Amino acid sequence: MRGRWYEEFRRGETWRSPGRRISRRDIRAFAGLSGDHNPLHIDSLYARRGPFKGPIAHGLLGLAVASGLLDRLGIVRETVLAFVGMDWRFVRPIRSGDTLRVNLRVLAKRKTGQSDRGLVTLASVIVNQKGKPVQEGRWTLLVHRRPGASSD
Amino acid sequence: MRGRWYEEFRRGETWRSPGRRISRRDIRAFAGLSGDHNPLHIDSLYARRGPFKGPIAHGLLGLAVASGLLDRLGIVRETVLAFVGMDWRFVRPIRSGDTLRVNLRVLAKRKTGQSDRGLVTLASVIVNQKGKPVQEGRWTLLVHRRPGASSD
Repeated sequence: MRGRWYEEFRRGETWRSPGRRISRRDIRAFAGLSGDHNPLHIDSLYARRGPFKGPIAHGLLGLAVASGLLDRLGIVRETVLAFVGMDWRFVRPIRSGDTLRVNLRVLAKRKTGQSDRGLVTLASVIVNQKGKPVQEGRWTLLVHRRPGASSD
Repeated sequence: MRGRWYEEFRRGETWRSPGRRISRRDIRAFAGLSGDHNPLHIDSLYARRGPFKGPIAHGLLGLAVASGLLDRLGIVRETVLAFVGMDWRFVRPIRSGDTLRVNLRVLAKRKTGQSDRGLVTLASVIVNQKGKPVQEGRWTLLVHRRPGASSD
């Protein structure tokens, strides 16, 4: 099912994604794919002596999973052209076994010079199974306008 | 080999990472791990009709690879405590076959309330094999101070 055209987003609208559990296997796979083998993520003995008292997921794994949850929500399916930018804060660690969701709210919309697309800014919060924010910020997406919409 | 303590970073200092080539397999692996199966990334026929005239890597895959290149540089190895936040722009598409590097520069340093750590902000640019920036912005990292450094 197709997602929304630019025109169909409304300021203040909100969504809550389905959940996804983060496994140790996800963390190892992310280390392999990214090349970030920081022992905070993959060496339990090292990580236990550190500030988090155990291994934590790469922050960017949490963000990657959130982008997948956005895809599953379907709101920009086949209507998003590009991820344009973000302001982002990693506020709490994510551990294997945590279940993440992403809460989204439309903050702003803006037309661009090109008549077939527009920018949509979402306030995004990744929350864990306790409802605590683990990451938050703003994502700006370039979204198709409705085909045949007036080009003004 | 251990990276730098907070005290050892100097404003204006720069680094250039080794390169890494992005493969179609990396893109498929990232789709599977993140859950973002947007056809822009994994369906060549769909992507060829789109604005990029072919499949592109997930922007967050490029960012993940850049974090791995930072790890390989070794400058924060076993001294980084956490990725705190970023401002980030995705400026050009990344395609399979592209080779990415990350160029880094120390923008700012700031002590925190805790005497054993400080914040280091890096200006980061991911460039492709043509030397064109594909992503850029700022990363803020929490870095250990030298053990036994004065706590003022």
